[in-house]
Amino acid sequence: MKLFDIGEFGLIRRFSPAFLRNLPPGVTGIGDDCAVLPWAGDRLLLVTTDLLVEDVHFLMARIGARDLGYKSLAVNLSDIAAMGGRPLSAFLSIGLPRDTDLGWTDEFFRGFAGLARAAKVSLLGGDTTGSPGPLVVNVALLGEARRQRVKYRSGARAGDAVCVTGYLGDSGAGLRVLLEDRPLGRDERRLVRSHNRPRAHLAEGAWLAAQVGVSAMMDVSDGIDSDLRRIMEQSRCGAAVDLGRLPVSAPLRRAAAAYGWDPVELAAAGGEDYCLLVTIRPDRWARTSAAFEKRFRRPLFRIGTINHQKEGLTYFREGRRAVLKRRGFDHFG
Amino acid sequence: MKLFDIGEFGLIRRFSPAFLRNLPPGVTGIGDDCAVLPWAGDRLLLVTTDLLVEDVHFLMARIGARDLGYKSLAVNLSDIAAMGGRPLSAFLSIGLPRDTDLGWTDEFFRGFAGLARAAKVSLLGGDTTGSPGPLVVNVALLGEARRQRVKYRSGARAGDAVCVTGYLGDSGAGLRVLLEDRPLGRDERRLVRSHNRPRAHLAEGAWLAAQVGVSAMMDVSDGIDSDLRRIMEQSRCGAAVDLGRLPVSAPLRRAAAAYGWDPVELAAAGGEDYCLLVTIRPDRWARTSAAFEKRFRRPLFRIGTINHQKEGLTYFREGRRAVLKRRGFDHFG
Repeated sequence: MKLFDIGEFGLIRRFSPAFLRNLPPGVTGIGDDCAVLPWAGDRLLLVTTDLLVEDVHFLMARIGARDLGYKSLAVNLSDIAAMGGRPLSAFLSIGLPRDTDLGWTDEFFRGFAGLARAAKVSLLGGDTTGSPGPLVVNVALLGEARRQRVKYRSGARAGDAVCVTGYLGDSGAGLRVLLEDRPLGRDERRLVRSHNRPRAHLAEGAWLAAQVGVSAMMDVSDGIDSDLRRIMEQSRCGAAVDLGRLPVSAPLRRAAAAYGWDPVELAAAGGEDYCLLVTIRPDRWARTSAAFEKRFRRPLFRIGTINHQKEGLTYFREGRRAVLKRRGFDHFG
Repeated sequence: MKLFDIGEFGLIRRFSPAFLRNLPPGVTGIGDDCAVLPWAGDRLLLVTTDLLVEDVHFLMARIGARDLGYKSLAVNLSDIAAMGGRPLSAFLSIGLPRDTDLGWTDEFFRGFAGLARAAKVSLLGGDTTGSPGPLVVNVALLGEARRQRVKYRSGARAGDAVCVTGYLGDSGAGLRVLLEDRPLGRDERRLVRSHNRPRAHLAEGAWLAAQVGVSAMMDVSDGIDSDLRRIMEQSRCGAAVDLGRLPVSAPLRRAAAAYGWDPVELAAAGGEDYCLLVTIRPDRWARTSAAFEKRFRRPLFRIGTINHQKEGLTYFREGRRAVLKRRGFDHFG
């Protein structure tokens, strides 16, 4: 049997049991955005790592070196944000084709280091090597969180509100703009920027982690259709999502109309949004969302409700059951 | 200008200044085997990461899946050993061609997890993805060390003894056995095993870190000709090495004689030995080496002496200046 027969998630399921065996006390391994280890006092150490491979996660012709450097760090910052943590230090491993232009590496590094400075992350090491084929980048990122505040994927309960901290689908639409070679007007440029320079919701994550009503949190990396299933798996629950309430930005709405795209499909399964997917206790929903809006001057978008495990993930549209056209992607698919 | 014009170390030098700027207090960044961060009380957190790329660091036809899994972790354990630390938890990122056989991934994982268990390392996470080209593996490893005991590359002083904790060149010779398709007799198998399943000197590193006379320590990954220069750089010193005292194993001696290889060249620049390179204060050398021999039942091999920076790295053989034929490798070379 080959890898593409079982896919990325099949492979993860295949090896998870060994990862979860014999963990030291107080340690959380895979199954969340970051691993969690005891740190000094009431602080926890968060660790996340992401591997980006050319032609799988990015196309050299479609993303500039500076944006790629920025994005390599941003996707890891997003994992720290998802736990309500503060990023501390980064380790950058890069495998470069030997004919890589030095101007390219300089720009890549400028993008990476610029975001690191802005996020107050120290670059503490890594590995540099050649690659005969694709360019590969692995970032490992350490962060910290207060024990009382860290949020996991496993805390959602039936009745909780399901919400997101930003528009969905802009990044997926930006990728589509690039792949379909659409002319770069103002809307298209904004969508491409969402794809190439995603913003990690660090401030939102830290704020939400401090709210008692927040029961579970993760970042939206593969699209809510895929990511919500992970909260369901870890929290042993189901969820009902109102497709009509997925927040769609004006640029996405206009581009979708112009190019005949389905904005709901992009919002639910486009992937790489890197906003946060949050569940909130029903009795805290109203005041938490009001306080969020006051603090961040934009809404916390409610898209659905957690329900019992046997219900699975169901979609509604205008009060009736609906079916989503496709699922989040798989890197072996 | 292209990457291969400046090479791996040129690239590292190009970006080091940005890595070293504005580090938080108590933090050591690049320039040593691990990054070092303050941890709880008198404990320090050690972090290391290594990227292995198919056809650069290994050939699929020359290493079995289980050995590759083992080696991916071993080379990182060796970095923790080099600081005198204890490994804690590992993060495995792997990029796999989609036609990879599942039997291969199972064996890879068995090799990795087997060594993790033996070294009491928890597997806490990572990333799994496809690769259109070479198989790539990145391991990030956390460890801990006592503040009073951690050893850096920067502590060597003129007069210190330069020693290694194991035979040199076996791994380089093992690679040569594979590349030259030599028949696999008993000696050849042992050399290949040194290359494919290197042993991290964790016990030796922890013991040496506790000795007051040990002034600097690192692991031998590129060959002492290359690695000793890094101690010289960090410690601002020179070194004189007696090529006649490089420890060469009996299997290497016999294979070198049979195939016309220069065992000294292999011992000095073969690379991937993963034993430790240690400097020891002259007044502590005798008792430290005697105690090492008693503890590990094999010698601590003295190969030279640290001297002043202006002397650079000099080689001697039978009392006369000698020239080493080649240097350790460069992954873009």
